[in-house]
Amino acid sequence: MNIVLLDPRQTQSELWSITAQRQIEHLHTHLAVQVGDSLKIGIRGGKRYLTQIVEISENIIKVKPLKEDHIPEKLPVTLIVALPRPKVLRRLIMDAVTLGVERLILIHSYRVDKSYWQTPFLQQLDHYVTLGLEQAGDTIAPKIELYKRFKPFVEDVLPTLISEQSPAFVAHPYTEEKMPFAIEHPCTVIIGPEGGFIPYEIDLLIKNGCQAVSLGNRIIRTETVIPYVLGRLFSTT
Amino acid sequence: MNIVLLDPRQTQSELWSITAQRQIEHLHTHLAVQVGDSLKIGIRGGKRYLTQIVEISENIIKVKPLKEDHIPEKLPVTLIVALPRPKVLRRLIMDAVTLGVERLILIHSYRVDKSYWQTPFLQQLDHYVTLGLEQAGDTIAPKIELYKRFKPFVEDVLPTLISEQSPAFVAHPYTEEKMPFAIEHPCTVIIGPEGGFIPYEIDLLIKNGCQAVSLGNRIIRTETVIPYVLGRLFSTT
Repeated sequence: MNIVLLDPRQTQSELWSITAQRQIEHLHTHLAVQVGDSLKIGIRGGKRYLTQIVEISENIIKVKPLKEDHIPEKLPVTLIVALPRPKVLRRLIMDAVTLGVERLILIHSYRVDKSYWQTPFLQQLDHYVTLGLEQAGDTIAPKIELYKRFKPFVEDVLPTLISEQSPAFVAHPYTEEKMPFAIEHPCTVIIGPEGGFIPYEIDLLIKNGCQAVSLGNRIIRTETVIPYVLGRLFSTT
Repeated sequence: MNIVLLDPRQTQSELWSITAQRQIEHLHTHLAVQVGDSLKIGIRGGKRYLTQIVEISENIIKVKPLKEDHIPEKLPVTLIVALPRPKVLRRLIMDAVTLGVERLILIHSYRVDKSYWQTPFLQQLDHYVTLGLEQAGDTIAPKIELYKRFKPFVEDVLPTLISEQSPAFVAHPYTEEKMPFAIEHPCTVIIGPEGGFIPYEIDLLIKNGCQAVSLGNRIIRTETVIPYVLGRLFSTT
């Protein structure tokens, strides 16, 4: 937690109130905060401030805003990922948010276990978005969308995301073309499930405007490949 | 598990025997293997082969080697990381191995909790190395070293790793210089603990030949920053 994210409702009087138990515990345990300390606060969907702690009690910490602070920029990327198992999903959401992904789309695919769509985590995405924002020092949540049917998504939605200025790359081990690097334009990146997309899916993605590109001959887990690809693509930022 | 890693002892007769319960279970549960299926086998520290399954019983799967296969290349990088908490350590080891890090050094630092050095995981590193190799399809374990004292490491060991042809970069948020990208030479990368290196440590690293470089103004967790940095540095591979 590198900033404390507050709801706009919590920042409408002169002093702002931190009341979430999770945040208060973190401030006590990890930062041992005291009255007078400075603290970075983000307003969800809004600005970020440097503040000073003016009051600490058991269930509330009050701060006074001092000055506006910079919000980190987003990466101009739409990340499309075949829904992973629930444990991986949590990390994936947090990491995508921390790294600054603008838009995240979770899709079905042949090798995605149907039970994954039943996980309670899908109802708690917002919590993991908050954790990711607080890690990064960001305040703006990415758009997250879910598509439970592969073909309609690829045929009807995906083409609307692709243009000459904003290509789409699907990571695929069995191709000569390499994933680009150090790009300076927006793009869409598509990551398959453990075991990869099946040939029918790769073909459909290519038919609908995606470029299949390789990341070399190491097979990397979904949660690891996301920072790896983003670091590679946006290395000039 | 994208290859099954065997000990050289298991590959000395004409047929090779998979006997580890973990591997046999995986082959049954995830791949539903049958006699006649082909299977990728790596010999730890040696070559990688395409094999065919010739016998399946409860506690043993026997395979016949068909032909030699390619081992993925390593990244020419020495990764130095302040020892993270045990849960993060497991992922970090697996990811570093999967991504092809040649040499991994875990060090102490002011913000590393001393109790982390007592974790039983440090006695099980080899298990997580195996999982990382099996994920990547690699057979060669990286060198892993542990240094429990920061100053002697930085003053006596680190300088021997650095040369004009192989610089060392320490990720540090408060610097203008950016982490390079798309490099085509070996290097050393140093990642601090949660909360970062303290100023004394950064100064000592710089005094001993490191370049402090920034990764932008998002604060990224240790386990996420490693693939992010490696993707950025070695994007031409």
